[in-house]
Amino acid sequence: MRTGVWLVGARGSVATTSIVGGLALRAGLTAPTGCVTELPALRGPALPTFADLFFGGHDLATTPLTKRAETLADAGVLPGRLAATLAAELTAVEEDLRPAPTGGTQADRAAAAVADLTAFRRRHRLDRVVVVDVSATEPAARPHPGHADPAALRAALAGPDEVLPPSSLYAYAAVEAGCPYVDFTPSTGLRLPALAELAVARGLPYAGHDGKTGETLVKSVLAPMFAMRHLAVRSWSGVNLLGGGDGATLADPAANAAKVESKQRVLGETLGYLPQGQTRIEFVEELGDFKTAWDLITFTGFLGTGMRMEFSWHGCDSALAAPLVLDLARLTAAAHAAGRVGPLTDLAFFFKDPLGSPTHSLAEQWQRLVEFTGRLHAEAAA
Amino acid sequence: MRTGVWLVGARGSVATTSIVGGLALRAGLTAPTGCVTELPALRGPALPTFADLFFGGHDLATTPLTKRAETLADAGVLPGRLAATLAAELTAVEEDLRPAPTGGTQADRAAAAVADLTAFRRRHRLDRVVVVDVSATEPAARPHPGHADPAALRAALAGPDEVLPPSSLYAYAAVEAGCPYVDFTPSTGLRLPALAELAVARGLPYAGHDGKTGETLVKSVLAPMFAMRHLAVRSWSGVNLLGGGDGATLADPAANAAKVESKQRVLGETLGYLPQGQTRIEFVEELGDFKTAWDLITFTGFLGTGMRMEFSWHGCDSALAAPLVLDLARLTAAAHAAGRVGPLTDLAFFFKDPLGSPTHSLAEQWQRLVEFTGRLHAEAAA
Amino acid sequence: MRTGVWLVGARGSVATTSIVGGLALRAGLTAPTGCVTELPALRGPALPTFADLFFGGHDLATTPLTKRAETLADAGVLPGRLAATLAAELTAVEEDLRPAPTGGTQADRAAAAVADLTAFRRRHRLDRVVVVDVSATEPAARPHPGHADPAALRAALAGPDEVLPPSSLYAYAAVEAGCPYVDFTPSTGLRLPALAELAVARGLPYAGHDGKTGETLVKSVLAPMFAMRHLAVRSWSGVNLLGGGDGATLADPAANAAKVESKQRVLGETLGYLPQGQTRIEFVEELGDFKTAWDLITFTGFLGTGMRMEFSWHGCDSALAAPLVLDLARLTAAAHAAGRVGPLTDLAFFFKDPLGSPTHSLAEQWQRLVEFTGRLHAEAAA
Amino acid sequence: MRTGVWLVGARGSVATTSIVGGLALRAGLTAPTGCVTELPALRGPALPTFADLFFGGHDLATTPLTKRAETLADAGVLPGRLAATLAAELTAVEEDLRPAPTGGTQADRAAAAVADLTAFRRRHRLDRVVVVDVSATEPAARPHPGHADPAALRAALAGPDEVLPPSSLYAYAAVEAGCPYVDFTPSTGLRLPALAELAVARGLPYAGHDGKTGETLVKSVLAPMFAMRHLAVRSWSGVNLLGGGDGATLADPAANAAKVESKQRVLGETLGYLPQGQTRIEFVEELGDFKTAWDLITFTGFLGTGMRMEFSWHGCDSALAAPLVLDLARLTAAAHAAGRVGPLTDLAFFFKDPLGSPTHSLAEQWQRLVEFTGRLHAEAAA
Ligand SMILES: NC(=O)c1ccc[n+]([C@@H]2O[C@H](COP(=O)([O-])OP(=O)(O)OC[C@H]3O[C@@H](n4cnc5c(N)ncnc54)[C@H](O)[C@@H]3O)[C@@H](O)[C@H]2O)c1
Ligand SMILES: NC(=O)c1ccc[n+]([C@@H]2O[C@H](COP(=O)([O-])OP(=O)(O)OC[C@H]3O[C@@H](n4cnc5c(N)ncnc54)[C@H](O)[C@@H]3O)[C@@H](O)[C@H]2O)c1
Ligand SMILES: NC(=O)c1ccc[n+]([C@@H]2O[C@H](COP(=O)([O-])OP(=O)(O)OC[C@H]3O[C@@H](n4cnc5c(N)ncnc54)[C@H](O)[C@@H]3O)[C@@H](O)[C@H]2O)c1
Ligand SMILES: NC(=O)c1ccc[n+]([C@@H]2O[C@H](COP(=O)([O-])OP(=O)(O)OC[C@H]3O[C@@H](n4cnc5c(N)ncnc54)[C@H](O)[C@@H]3O)[C@@H](O)[C@H]2O)c1
Ligand code: NA
Ligand code: NA
Repeated sequence: MRTGVWLVGARGSVATTSIVGGLALRAGLTAPTGCVTELPALRGPALPTFADLFFGGHDLATTPLTKRAETLADAGVLPGRLAATLAAELTAVEEDLRPAPTGGTQADRAAAAVADLTAFRRRHRLDRVVVVDVSATEPAARPHPGHADPAALRAALAGPDEVLPPSSLYAYAAVEAGCPYVDFTPSTGLRLPALAELAVARGLPYAGHDGKTGETLVKSVLAPMFAMRHLAVRSWSGVNLLGGGDGATLADPAANAAKVESKQRVLGETLGYLPQGQTRIEFVEELGDFKTAWDLITFTGFLGTGMRMEFSWHGCDSALAAPLVLDLARLTAAAHAAGRVGPLTDLAFFFKDPLGSPTHSLAEQWQRLVEFTGRLHAEAAA
Repeated sequence: MRTGVWLVGARGSVATTSIVGGLALRAGLTAPTGCVTELPALRGPALPTFADLFFGGHDLATTPLTKRAETLADAGVLPGRLAATLAAELTAVEEDLRPAPTGGTQADRAAAAVADLTAFRRRHRLDRVVVVDVSATEPAARPHPGHADPAALRAALAGPDEVLPPSSLYAYAAVEAGCPYVDFTPSTGLRLPALAELAVARGLPYAGHDGKTGETLVKSVLAPMFAMRHLAVRSWSGVNLLGGGDGATLADPAANAAKVESKQRVLGETLGYLPQGQTRIEFVEELGDFKTAWDLITFTGFLGTGMRMEFSWHGCDSALAAPLVLDLARLTAAAHAAGRVGPLTDLAFFFKDPLGSPTHSLAEQWQRLVEFTGRLHAEAAA
Repeated sequence: MRTGVWLVGARGSVATTSIVGGLALRAGLTAPTGCVTELPALRGPALPTFADLFFGGHDLATTPLTKRAETLADAGVLPGRLAATLAAELTAVEEDLRPAPTGGTQADRAAAAVADLTAFRRRHRLDRVVVVDVSATEPAARPHPGHADPAALRAALAGPDEVLPPSSLYAYAAVEAGCPYVDFTPSTGLRLPALAELAVARGLPYAGHDGKTGETLVKSVLAPMFAMRHLAVRSWSGVNLLGGGDGATLADPAANAAKVESKQRVLGETLGYLPQGQTRIEFVEELGDFKTAWDLITFTGFLGTGMRMEFSWHGCDSALAAPLVLDLARLTAAAHAAGRVGPLTDLAFFFKDPLGSPTHSLAEQWQRLVEFTGRLHAEAAA
Repeated sequence: MRTGVWLVGARGSVATTSIVGGLALRAGLTAPTGCVTELPALRGPALPTFADLFFGGHDLATTPLTKRAETLADAGVLPGRLAATLAAELTAVEEDLRPAPTGGTQADRAAAAVADLTAFRRRHRLDRVVVVDVSATEPAARPHPGHADPAALRAALAGPDEVLPPSSLYAYAAVEAGCPYVDFTPSTGLRLPALAELAVARGLPYAGHDGKTGETLVKSVLAPMFAMRHLAVRSWSGVNLLGGGDGATLADPAANAAKVESKQRVLGETLGYLPQGQTRIEFVEELGDFKTAWDLITFTGFLGTGMRMEFSWHGCDSALAAPLVLDLARLTAAAHAAGRVGPLTDLAFFFKDPLGSPTHSLAEQWQRLVEFTGRLHAEAAA
C-alpha cells in the first residue's frame, strides 16, 4: 500500500521532524517511540508500513530540508548524527517539495495544488496521498457566502475574492485531488460546510483538528480524574511558554485566541462546568523548541476542604507531534482504503479539538481508537 | 437497608472525618463532594442512603470523638462550625465506640470483637454491618502455620501465640460475625489463605486494599497516558512529605516499606517495565494533615528526545479518604445484599494495591466500577 | 513617642490586617513574626513601641472593621479568635476612621483631609502622624501643568480640574498637615515634582513605593545570586495568580501595567541586562487572599550549558504586607523625629520600586537599612 | 605568573570540564560565563590569566581525557565541537596526568605524589602549583592518633597503618611539596590538626570545602531572605536526584551522610534554628549529569498565617562546578603569591561547608570575597 504523505508546511518543525523520523524508521535507525500505531493494541495489517510512506509537500519557505534538520538537531530536537546519516534521503524528498501556489485567483491556486498532488501520486505510483496540514496557525476565517455549499464555493473561487483562508484552500485542493485529509492545526481547514459536503461527495475521510501534544494531553487525563473522584475543580490556570516552531505566530493574539479556546474546551466538557482561570500562550524565543507549560489546579474535596495541584510539563513539541503525524497518515490511509467517508471521529485521541467528539477523556478516546483500528485490521485480514 | 459502618481505628483522622461527614450528609449540612457513589454514573437504588448509615468502631485510643473533630477542625481538615453543630450526634456515636479488645488469647480477643459487632447490629436493628479497617498501618505480618487454612488458624488462635497481626484479628472477627469487610490500609488484614477461605465459606464479600487518595491516584492516570502515547518513561521519582494521621507510623521503615512498595506497583504494571527511581515517604510534623507529594518523571519521545514532567500534589489526606470510606461501605453493603461473595475486584478504583486486579489504569477501573454498580442497581430494581 | 498611623484605604485587606496585628501586638496576643523592626539587628530606642501606635484612616468603603476582620479570618488571613478577642479595640479604632472626602474642588477635599489628620493628632495628643497609603492601586496619572511646582499646584487645585489623582491628593494633604508619608502602593502618590518640593520645604521625610511582599521579594535575592555567580539569565517569566484584596483592581490593564513594570525592573537593574520573558498578573477570584506566583528562569553556565530553575510562591499577601506597614510607620516616625527630610532611600528594602535606590539586591538593601536604623538608634540614645 | 592546577581526580566530570573549559578560555573559544573571577567586581592584576594556567593531576582511572570529554559532550555538559577542536591540547594535558600512587606504606605513596607535583612544576617552569581535590567523595575518616600533630603523623605514616584517608594523603603530599591546596569535596582533605599545622608551618594557604553549586547555593540566598523578613521557617525538605559524576558514590550512605549534613548546616546557621525536614540525595542514573533538586519550604508570617514556597533546580553539576575550580585555583594562587597563610575563610562564597566561616549568607560571603580580592589586587598593583 504505497502511501503518499503530503505535508502542507513541509519545511516547518513538525513536518521536518516527521520526515526525518519517517525516513529513520524506514531505515531501521530508530525505534518507533511515540508512534501510537506501533503499540500492540493498535498494530496490524490494515496500516501501511513505514517503508510504504513517501513524503512530499507545500511550503512558502525555501530553506532546504537538510538545513532545517540541522537547525532542529542543534536545538536538541533531533540527534545530529541522524540528520547527517539521512542527508541523501532528505535530498531525495526535497525533489517532492513544491512552493506554495501563488498568483491568479484562488481557483487557479487550487488547480496548481491539485496538479502538484496528482503529479506526486503518479511519480511514485502511490495508491493514495494523505494531505496533512502542519502549516503555521492562521487567524479565524472571515465568513463568506461561498462557504455555504459546493456550488457557491466554486463560483466564488473563480472570482477575485479571497474566499478561503489558505488552510481551507489546501483542504479544497486535497478533496478535489481525491486525497483524504488530516488537519493537525487549529486553523479552519476543512471545517466549512461546502468543504465537508464535497469531501463526502468524493468518498473521502478526514480527521482533525489541532494535535494534542502537551498541556492539553495532560489535562485530558487529569480532568477526568477529578471528575471520576467527584472533586470540585475551582480554578485551573495555565501558562505555556514556547519559543520555537509556531510560537511566534501564536504570539499574535488572533491566532492565539483559536488555540487558547481549544485548550480550555477540554475542561468544560469533561467536568460539566467551567472552572475559573485561563490558559495563556507566551512566546519566549530563548526557550526554543522546548515548551514549558505550568498549570495550577485548585479544588475542594469532602466538607469543602481546599487542595491544590501544580504541574510543569517540559516537552519538545515537534518530537511529540511528529510521530502522531505519521500515525494519522497511516490511520487515515487505512480508513480510506477501507472505504470510510466523512469525519473520522474515532481519531479524537490525537486532537485538542476533535471533530464531533462526544468525549474529551483520553481513556475513552483510546478505547474508541482501539476499537476503530481493530475493525480496520479485521476487514484488512478478511 | 439499615447499614452499620464499623470502623477499626474509629478515633483516627480518617475515621473521624468519615463519621463527621456521614452525619453532615445525613443532616443535609454538606454536599457529597468527593463521594464517588453520588455521581450520576454510580447513583442508584442498590446503595444504602446516607441516612441508612450507623457508625461504630474499635480503637486503642480513648480521645473523645468531639475532641478529635475539634483538632481536625483546627488543622483545617473540617469546618469548625460543622464539628460544633454536630456535637450531639457525635456524642451519640461515641456510645457505639468500643475499646480495642485486650488480654487473654487471640481467640478471646476475637470473641470479644465478635460480641461488640453483634451487639452493635442488634442495638440498631441493622441489616448488616460492614467492617472497615482504617487503623494505623502495621508492619508486614510474620508467617505462621496457622495462616494456611481455617482449621489450623482456629487451633493456633486458642494457643498462646500471637498468630495474627491485629489487622487480621479484626478481619477474622468480622468474618466470624458475618460482616463484609473493607481494608483501607496496607496492613495484612484479610489477605491470608485461612481468612479468605473463611470469608467465602460464610458467603461474605470483601474489598481492599490501601485507599488510593493522593500521589498514586495521579500516577494511575499519568502512567496510562505515557503508555497510550508510546512514550518511554525513563525515571519516576517521588517524595511524600506528610505530618498528620498515619504519618508518624509510616516514618517507621517497616510500615513504610509496605506502603512504598504498593505505590511503585502501579508503574510497573501499567507501563510493562519499571522505570528508575523510587517513592519516599517522610514524616514532617509541621505539615500536619496536608500532604505534599512531588514527582519527577523523565521520558523520551520520538528519536530519543528527552523530556520531563513534574507535579506537586498538596492534598488533605483525611478529606480525600473519608468520602471513599463511605463509598466503600455503601458498595460493599450492596454487594453483600446482592449475594456477592469473595474479593470485590471491581472496586479496584478505590485502592492503591487492589485485590486481584488486572489493571492499574484509573479509567479502566472506573469502567469496571460503573458496570459492577450498574448490575447491582439493575438487580435491586428488579 | 505617641505615633499616629493614618491609613489611606483603612478598610482594605492590608490596612485591616495591620490594625488587627498592631492591636494584637500591643495586647501581647501575638509574636512579631514578619516585623522586621523587631529583629535584633534593627530593634532599638529610636522606634515607637507597638503600644505607642494609634490607628486612623480614610476609606471610600464603609464596611465596619470588625466585619472586614471576620471576612479575613474566614479566608484564613487572620486567626478568627484574634478578631473576636479584639472586637472592642477594633470598635474603638472605628471612631478614628473617616470617609474619603468628596465634593467641591480638589482644594476643598485636601482641606477636609488635612482637618481629619489634625483632629486625629489633637484627639490622641500624638507627637506625629505618619500617613500610609494602602488604598487600591490607581491607573497612571494624567500629566497636568500643576504638577510642576508648589505654586502651580496650589493655583490649579483651587480650580475645577481634577489636577491630582486621588493618591496624590492624599499625599498633598499629608504634607500640608505636616505628616511624614509612606507609599505602599504603585500609585503616583508623592512622586510629582510639586509634592516632593513641598515635602522638603516642610521638613518631612517620605518613603515608597509599592511594598515588596511576594514574587519580587524572591527575585531580589535570586537575581543577585545569578549575577554573583556570573551565570547568564536568558529568560525569566512569571505569572501571579491572585484573587483577594487588590486583585480585581489589578485585573484592569491600566493599573496592572504599573505593577508589572515595577516587577520587571528589579531584573534589569540587578543583572545589567533584561532577560526575555514577562511577568503577568491574573485575577482568579477563587484563590482569595492567597496568591500563587510561578516563575521559570532559564540560564546558561560555563561553556554555554543550558539550565533552569522554577519556583512557586504561595503567600498570603496581606499577612506579608501588614507587618511591613507597621515597620514603615515606626521607621518613618523615627526618621521624622530625628529630623530626616526628603526621600528615605535607605528604606528600599521594603519596596518593589524604591525611591532613588541604587540597588535592587535585597542583601545590600538590608545592609543600608541596618546602618540607617543604627544611626537613628545612636542619635536617640545620645 | 605561570600557575599549575593539579587536579586530584583529574579524569572525573568536574576535572575534565575544568580542563576543557580552561583550554577553551585560553584559546578564546568561549566566554567566561560562570567564572566569578571575571566579574568586574573581582577582575584584576593579582590573578593569573587563563593563559597562565597549566593542568595536571592524579586519577585512579585511566580513561583518556579526550574520551571523557566526548562522553560529557554526548551528555550535553560540553559542546561536542569544543571537545573536537581542543583534541590536540587535551592530548598534551594527558602527558601531565599521573596514576594515583599505589603500593608501599602511606609514606611511600605520599613521596610518590610529591615527586609527581615537583616534576610537574619543574617541567613547565611554574611559579607555583595549586592542588585541587575534585576526586570522588569518600566516607568520613576513621580517627587515628597520627592525626593529632605533624610528628605523630610522620611516625604513623611510615608504619603499616592506613593512617590517612586518600583525600588527606593528597593534602599531605601537597603541603610537603609546598603547594597551596583547595578542597572542592566534602571529604576530610586537610581538615586534620596535623595537616593544618603543617600547612601553616610551610607558609601555605588553603581553601575548602565542598563546592556550592546547586540546591545549597539557592538555600544560601533564600534562607537569609526569610531571616531578614523575620518569617518563621517551619520546615525545609529537599530531595536531590542525580545520575552522573559523583552520584553513584553519594548513593553510598556513608559518603551521603557527610554531604547531607553539610547541606543542612546552612539553614541552621542562617536562621538561628533548625526547621523540620531533611535533605536527601538519590542516585537516578537516567538523569545523568543534570541534577534536579526540589525543595519545599513552609513558613509562617504575621499572626501565624501559614505559607509555602517550592523550587526546582535543574542544573548541570559539572558545568556549575568547573568555572569555580578555575576561580579557586586563580584566587588561591594569588593568595599564595601575596603571602597569605592558613585557611582562606574569605573564600566561603564558593563552599557548602566553608572553613571557619562566620556566615552562610551568600551576599555577605560575596562582600567578603570582593574585599579580599580587592586587597590582593591593590597589593599586586603596588
Ligand atoms: N508541535 C506541536 O506540538 C503542535 C501541536 C498541535 C498543533 N501544532 C500545529 O502544527 C503547525 C506547525 O507547527 P510547527 O511548530 O511545525 O510550526 P513552524 O512555524 O515550524 O512551521 C510552519 C510551516 O508552515 C509554513 N507555512 C506557513 N504558511 C503557509 C502556507 N500558506 N502554505 C504553505 N506553508 C506555509 C511555514 O513556512 C513553516 O515552514 C502549527 O499550526 C501548530 O499550531 C503543532
Ligand atoms: N488518609 C489517607 O489518605 C489514607 C490513604 C490510604 C490508606 N490510609 C490508611 O488509613 C489508616 C488510617 O489513617 P489515619 O490517617 O486515620 O491514621 P491515624 O493515625 O489518625 O488513625 C489511626 C487510628 O488507629 C488506631 N489504632 C491503631 N492500632 C489499633 C488497633 N490495634 N486497634 C484499634 N485501633 C487502632 C489509632 O489509635 C488511631 O486512632 C492508615 O493505615 C493509613 O495508612 C489512609
Ligand atoms: N498585599 C500586598 O502584598 C501588597 C504589596 C504591595 C502593594 N500593595 C498595595 O496595597 C494596596 C492595598 O491592597 P489591599 O490588598 O489591601 O487592597 P484592598 O482592595 O483590600 O483595599 C484597598 C482599600 O482602598 C480603598 N480605597 C480605594 N480607593 C480609595 C480612595 N480614593 N480613598 C480612600 N480609600 C480608597 C478601598 O475601598 C479598599 O478598602 C494596593 O494598592 C496594593 O497594590 C499590597
Ligand atoms: N559537580 C558539582 O557540582 C560538585 C559540587 C560540590 C562538590 N563536588 C565534588 O567534586 C568531586 C568530583 O565530582 P565529579 O562529579 O567530578 O565525580 P566523578 O566521579 O566524575 O569524578 C571523580 C574522579 O575521582 C577519581 N578518584 C576516585 N578516587 C580517587 C583517588 N583515591 N585518587 C585519585 N582519583 C580518584 C575517580 O576515578 C574519578 O575520575 C566529588 O567529590 C563531588 O562531591 C562536585
Ligand atoms: Na515545579
Ligand atoms: Na512546583
